[in-house]
Amino acid sequence: MSIAKTPKPPYFAAIFTAIATEMQEGYADTVQRMHELAQEAPGFLGMESAGDDFEITVSYWQDEESIFHWKQNASHQIAQELDKTKWYKAYQVRVSRVEREYGFKTG
Amino acid sequence: MSIAKTPKPPYFAAIFTAIATEMQEGYADTVQRMHELAQEAPGFLGMESAGDDFEITVSYWQDEESIFHWKQNASHQIAQELDKTKWYKAYQVRVSRVEREYGFKTG
Repeated sequence: MSIAKTPKPPYFAAIFTAIATEMQEGYADTVQRMHELAQEAPGFLGMESAGDDFEITVSYWQDEESIFHWKQNASHQIAQELDKTKWYKAYQVRVSRVEREYGFKTG
Repeated sequence: MSIAKTPKPPYFAAIFTAIATEMQEGYADTVQRMHELAQEAPGFLGMESAGDDFEITVSYWQDEESIFHWKQNASHQIAQELDKTKWYKAYQVRVSRVEREYGFKTG
């Protein structure tokens, strides 16, 4: 995983935070598939993911419409695998508008 | 770590993503201290953190001014420990405005 190469703000971020259950069979595959699907989605800018029992995934998008479409599309395509009661005890999605950013990089 | 209990949007999120170096001596203590300091900072709403080599930490704030003050304050108080060239190969901070959210919780 690396830091997403996003354009100059403004753009949008979907912040997904989740607490996993112990039942994680097939989970990694589905996450991988969702990442692949996201990359083909209109307006997708990048994705970052960290953690396991407590997971944070941030995906970046050109605009709010892109997030909305992605949500509809992903849910439709892998709905049966996205059994939230199986994989998650709880999750929260926060849709936000990135206003500014700064960073640091070696080398 | 648990999902932050944030108020109804709008509020702000500082999305911090970082790639760590191998040199992590003292890092956990400093992160812990920063979390404690954040909790006393004006406008602080909550914090979520996941990962290790690749880390994502999201802190939530009432407004942009709170993020700005927190940054000034934290940098001042633990500046010497925040040796970014020691702990991080790269990091990015994205300041964003949370527009809407939805979630799911068992039990």
